[in-house]
Amino acid sequence: MKYGYFDDDNREYVITNPKTPYPWINYLGNEDFFSLTSNTGGGYTFYKDAKFRRLTRYRYNNVPVDDGGKYFYIKDGDTVWSPGWKPMKTELDTYECRHGMSYTKFKGAKNGVETEVLQFIPLGFWGEIQKVSVKNTSSEVKKIKLFSFIEFALWNAEDDMTNFQRNFNTGEVEVEDSVIYHKTEFKERRNHYSFYSVNQAINGFDTDRESFIGLYNGFDNPDVVNEGKSKNTIAHGWSPIASHYIEIELQPGEQKDYVFMLGYVEVDEADKWESKLVINKKPAKEMIAKFDTVEKVDAAYNELRTYWDNLLGKITIDSGEEKLDRMVNIWNQYQCMVTFNMSRSASFFESGIGRGMGFRDSNQDLIGFVHQIPERARERIVDIASTQFEDGSCYHQYQPLTKKGNAAIGGDFNDDPLWLILSTSEYIKETGDFSLLDEMVPFDNDASRAKPHFDHLKASFYHVVNNLGPHKLPLIGRADWNDCLNLNCFSNDPNESFQTTGNKKGDTAESLMIAGLFVMYGKEYVKLCKRIGKNDEAVEAEVHVSNMIEAVKKHGWDGDWYLRAYDYYGKKIGSNENEEGKIFIESQGWCSMAEIGKEEGLVEKSLNSVKEHLDCEYGIVLNSPAFTKYHIEYGEISTYPAGYKENGGIFCHNNPWIMIGETMIGRGDEAYDYYTKIAPSFLEDISELHKVEPYVYCQMIAGKEAFKPGEAKNSWLSGTASWNFYAITQYILGVKPDYDGLSINPCIPSKWDGFKMTREFRGATYNIEVFNPKHISKGVLQLIVNGEEIEGVIVPILEKGKKHSIQVIMG
Amino acid sequence: MKYGYFDDDNREYVITNPKTPYPWINYLGNEDFFSLTSNTGGGYTFYKDAKFRRLTRYRYNNVPVDDGGKYFYIKDGDTVWSPGWKPMKTELDTYECRHGMSYTKFKGAKNGVETEVLQFIPLGFWGEIQKVSVKNTSSEVKKIKLFSFIEFALWNAEDDMTNFQRNFNTGEVEVEDSVIYHKTEFKERRNHYSFYSVNQAINGFDTDRESFIGLYNGFDNPDVVNEGKSKNTIAHGWSPIASHYIEIELQPGEQKDYVFMLGYVEVDEADKWESKLVINKKPAKEMIAKFDTVEKVDAAYNELRTYWDNLLGKITIDSGEEKLDRMVNIWNQYQCMVTFNMSRSASFFESGIGRGMGFRDSNQDLIGFVHQIPERARERIVDIASTQFEDGSCYHQYQPLTKKGNAAIGGDFNDDPLWLILSTSEYIKETGDFSLLDEMVPFDNDASRAKPHFDHLKASFYHVVNNLGPHKLPLIGRADWNDCLNLNCFSNDPNESFQTTGNKKGDTAESLMIAGLFVMYGKEYVKLCKRIGKNDEAVEAEVHVSNMIEAVKKHGWDGDWYLRAYDYYGKKIGSNENEEGKIFIESQGWCSMAEIGKEEGLVEKSLNSVKEHLDCEYGIVLNSPAFTKYHIEYGEISTYPAGYKENGGIFCHNNPWIMIGETMIGRGDEAYDYYTKIAPSFLEDISELHKVEPYVYCQMIAGKEAFKPGEAKNSWLSGTASWNFYAITQYILGVKPDYDGLSINPCIPSKWDGFKMTREFRGATYNIEVFNPKHISKGVLQLIVNGEEIEGVIVPILEKGKKHSIQVIMG
Repeated sequence: MKYGYFDDDNREYVITNPKTPYPWINYLGNEDFFSLTSNTGGGYTFYKDAKFRRLTRYRYNNVPVDDGGKYFYIKDGDTVWSPGWKPMKTELDTYECRHGMSYTKFKGAKNGVETEVLQFIPLGFWGEIQKVSVKNTSSEVKKIKLFSFIEFALWNAEDDMTNFQRNFNTGEVEVEDSVIYHKTEFKERRNHYSFYSVNQAINGFDTDRESFIGLYNGFDNPDVVNEGKSKNTIAHGWSPIASHYIEIELQPGEQKDYVFMLGYVEVDEADKWESKLVINKKPAKEMIAKFDTVEKVDAAYNELRTYWDNLLGKITIDSGEEKLDRMVNIWNQYQCMVTFNMSRSASFFESGIGRGMGFRDSNQDLIGFVHQIPERARERIVDIASTQFEDGSCYHQYQPLTKKGNAAIGGDFNDDPLWLILSTSEYIKETGDFSLLDEMVPFDNDASRAKPHFDHLKASFYHVVNNLGPHKLPLIGRADWNDCLNLNCFSNDPNESFQTTGNKKGDTAESLMIAGLFVMYGKEYVKLCKRIGKNDEAVEAEVHVSNMIEAVKKHGWDGDWYLRAYDYYGKKIGSNENEEGKIFIESQGWCSMAEIGKEEGLVEKSLNSVKEHLDCEYGIVLNSPAFTKYHIEYGEISTYPAGYKENGGIFCHNNPWIMIGETMIGRGDEAYDYYTKIAPSFLEDISELHKVEPYVYCQMIAGKEAFKPGEAKNSWLSGTASWNFYAITQYILGVKPDYDGLSINPCIPSKWDGFKMTREFRGATYNIEVFNPKHISKGVLQLIVNGEEIEGVIVPILEKGKKHSIQVIMG
Repeated sequence: MKYGYFDDDNREYVITNPKTPYPWINYLGNEDFFSLTSNTGGGYTFYKDAKFRRLTRYRYNNVPVDDGGKYFYIKDGDTVWSPGWKPMKTELDTYECRHGMSYTKFKGAKNGVETEVLQFIPLGFWGEIQKVSVKNTSSEVKKIKLFSFIEFALWNAEDDMTNFQRNFNTGEVEVEDSVIYHKTEFKERRNHYSFYSVNQAINGFDTDRESFIGLYNGFDNPDVVNEGKSKNTIAHGWSPIASHYIEIELQPGEQKDYVFMLGYVEVDEADKWESKLVINKKPAKEMIAKFDTVEKVDAAYNELRTYWDNLLGKITIDSGEEKLDRMVNIWNQYQCMVTFNMSRSASFFESGIGRGMGFRDSNQDLIGFVHQIPERARERIVDIASTQFEDGSCYHQYQPLTKKGNAAIGGDFNDDPLWLILSTSEYIKETGDFSLLDEMVPFDNDASRAKPHFDHLKASFYHVVNNLGPHKLPLIGRADWNDCLNLNCFSNDPNESFQTTGNKKGDTAESLMIAGLFVMYGKEYVKLCKRIGKNDEAVEAEVHVSNMIEAVKKHGWDGDWYLRAYDYYGKKIGSNENEEGKIFIESQGWCSMAEIGKEEGLVEKSLNSVKEHLDCEYGIVLNSPAFTKYHIEYGEISTYPAGYKENGGIFCHNNPWIMIGETMIGRGDEAYDYYTKIAPSFLEDISELHKVEPYVYCQMIAGKEAFKPGEAKNSWLSGTASWNFYAITQYILGVKPDYDGLSINPCIPSKWDGFKMTREFRGATYNIEVFNPKHISKGVLQLIVNGEEIEGVIVPILEKGKKHSIQVIMG
């Protein structure tokens, strides 16, 4: 069952049934100021940090779901309704929610009144616009009443939902003209306030939640709206809100437009006050003036659309497969930008108060957006590397506000260092900008300990070399990519974090996943060394890589697949010897991608085993069989019910590793089959089961051993976005930036006739046409660049600012 | 306006209008297992620790308020209603909620069906009973459907409301017969589960919230109830709930009774499983069997009532003032027991996840319950003292589960140590048990560093002596009793805690409040030393006390009142020289109670100044004028809006200090006037303004400079309970345990003719009659004990197990 449709021309998903199986959301904002908004107007707004600067309140896991947000009430006679359906849930004559690129449009109609709400955050602006257009589509004069509603959070989202003995006393607002100012704690330590304005005179307002809604009423039954008249309340403590009240008269066919703005203002200490206890409203008024007409709003909206046209114009494809095209051209790229902005902080599954920027996450996210915003990618790499230690080890997370490592979570996730080689090499391949390697980058955020960025890569490489276990395989530390495989934890206290507890000395438990990762990015490190003339270092590094390959072959192969790990006791994990968890996806992915033992057939065997044991209708599960009991020596992984999360769930992030692995042995049909199983646009028809948005990837789909296989959770903020984009564009479609040019070596379904891609690369536009006359999956017969055939698969760096024509004939 | 009435015979407050101005709650449970329940069935249950063992989910600051709890739905034809009004909010023919001593009864009736729900936790039991009686009061046969509802929390309340990317995957239940078992995380590190049962066969059940309620519905509109039929769902992840479905047929006049139980079970590791993935239900079944009939339930209920008869029987009064009697005899004592159980952890204002046991709080709470449960009081004193350091300094809080000091909050609240002298001396006076002083009590929870408890008192005393400032007054450290007076903090970062940040060296800021406290309990310490023969120590201590008295007179007197403090710069706080915060209540209270400068008239002047500057219609405000701007050198106190909390609010905890001060100079009218201003039973008629329960004290009432003077917040968990009980019984009524007997020296309103009190003391019953023929406030003319007149005001320790008759004639 579908709840809407893709409007690819407008780059929108259009929801036509408000009762989606779960709230389907969108993200507004692209830099400092962000909103989450659901298809019924639920969600919240924050400035930079979803924990420390929450502008509006949101209640997670609420009943009804997603209750609370930015709402409008239209009172038309005795009928009250909302253009986004919620909160009133009055049945509408028509309902439509269009989630676009950083904007959302609601359109609702009832009894001859049509209301459209366009919601977006102008570029570079610290405020959210709601353009509300109310139109009389009837043949009679309409007199209606419009009420707006938002609820302020008292800034720190965690404190806001726990510390009531203080917070019920602190709320403060001011109202002047049509603007409601929220100034809680501005008197003391805050240099910021927020406001909610409308560009026209109002007939009333409310700022006290209890007065507006009524203590025992819900958002769907507010007192003030029922009574049809604001109370003009000024909140003192309890829960400040902002609601405007506007009486509207419309002639038949007439439309009126209103511009609402939720803004955020910071002021210098010296400029905080206009007069005693009266805040300085000048900066707010300046913001309001910027968008006080529909024309100004429309201009900003068009600017935003152009911004996204440019971002999404850098890679576009025409494959003949509609569902694929909309993923690559629109939604997958869009999601990559959202993960760049949010990391794992704020979604409808991430509450915005728990997690900083992950070292590992951020490096991987980068491969999804480096082509769009290379300058910011470089900045991000430096931020990440600055938190590393001299020995190559890393804080597992860092704080977005301070950019410092998060000591509370600590480090010792032994895969972390290697991801820096991935992000750096991908950045250089995309941009050609080797100067990054020379940039002086601090260790542990201490500028006095800065070294060239290359030294960080070297430290990363040798952190593995210097931390090998009994089988000469990499020690796992607290965990590797799978945060939940905690081989040195041994926790039996439910109040302990698996990620920060480590009872055992970590000198035995080893990870085959890190081994594959090391071979993969060890080779990349060797290449980089050679490119910058560090040949001795390259030679030495190659020895370490070779040793690792040998160690994997000798101690990491289980007969039909790669082992997952050795545990604290030196016992195998992910072996046919095990009763549960016989095979895991991660080591198959990484050792295949790294082509370890490919010549002996290990890669093919491994991938065949994945097909046989891990694949199912909805994707590739993480491990099989799932654990049914707790293994204290494995940690969190065995705590999940079978089929969920890292215990036999389809953890989508790792599925592309298998797709890429398949392309290493030329199996384009298999690779693409895996791609379509988890790509959301392909799942639109089963939305009722899939539950979350059909336009973005989720972290996890319940696996074959789950109660409800195919049900997905934790959409939006997942490394799944970048890895799938990377796999489809660079390995399946096969257009891959390299140091000397653009490599084109597709590995596609054999039934395809080919495809087209337009790609910006090093300042030039590559118009690529791939032809597959023989219906094979892999193999380039001819490569023609601007009419001339060249050798190999790498298109050289072509003249900037020009369009170039490339034909690839497979065969 | 009133919303109910006091039923003193039953020791109940009876709410007859469900729409109270705020949820009015009660506490169930007396030892390990607790519930909070509002007058409409909202609230939650936990085992021992409201953060780490939350059995049911609760959403604070919800819209509607208090939405979510333990609910029943009665479907009678097309009408659905709830006996506690919520969640359905269907208008009832009759509604009544009786909050009694550790139990609550709901009675609702609609269309000829009457339902009573009796809710309580049997003594020593880890389960809550709901006895549901459904009666047909009509003349026709009634066929109705009963649905129960609770929502499970996933144990750790903080994690439960933030960590959805994990938690939406982990929920697990089992259903067998009429019992729904919640076993999330039991598979791994938890040794406990919970269950919800009913003692009869059921027609269906649900355990998946979304299935029961519907994604877009509220608690007031559940799908299953609407459809009139359970779906028999088994929850896998998301939000497990428990709902039973029972079809009931009732003849005219017939009643049927059902016993529901929400229980908590711990099992040994070896006994966790019945079979693979099937939990061991034996202990649950044993619990259920204990209360599987109405007779067993009624017996346990009667046992609970007898338990409270005994507890409350230890002190009873008959003053002729109904409102006073119900405070002293019932509600104030009841609240003191609740604060003993809860400290400051879980109320409708304290979210149960933020705070441990306060060192200061717990010592003070003890003076409210030591007469009821002296053994547990002694245990509590030892727990508290065990967290102290050898130099007398203290952790500010300790954890109830581990009983260890909370390093995250730290120490250096320099009043903390002295409260230990208060609790210890009050304990010994009540019990005569000097052996406590010899008990070996650890420092910093290290048994190897244990010393006799007396050494802890000595360390406490000298911690002040060793930490004096420039005026020889006590250094304040992070703060004194007023956590918000942070004189060494200087914070301008809103994400810093005022309580844990200290930027400045604390060797200048001094507290007059601690000075008064030191003189008060320094004298007590001297007395104790003498009693146990430590005369040299007594002599030395007396010198320190005298020095402090001199220091206060010299540097702590502002002309008309005592100063509050000296700040970091050595400037006065609470002086006529200040523009705001000229006078504070704490130093007036403590220096008056300690009678510093009484002979020179300072106490009287101070108290007159309190009357003039701090008193208002609703009580005594903390400071005046309230601060209107942030003083970085004062800390949190100046962050609150004027009139709220510690900034000009009526912080009820400190009002009794003034009452006691007034009794020191014999002003019984003033003392009692202050008492009645904040005693909740006296405020019943203004419930609409007062907002919170009229049967328990709250922490704070908005002061005269507030937007809404008289509006109260943060009811239940406050030192207000114990201090008011202490002030009214021991200083106004004047019946005060002393080492050698029971001192009787009332200071009452002059218009009173006298009063009666029955008091258990050292195993004997003292039947006291006080006569005030001359209508004075203070002065004992005759003291007659068992018919014989004795000298002085102290009734000696009388024969155990006997009743003794005491007459006091004032004059």
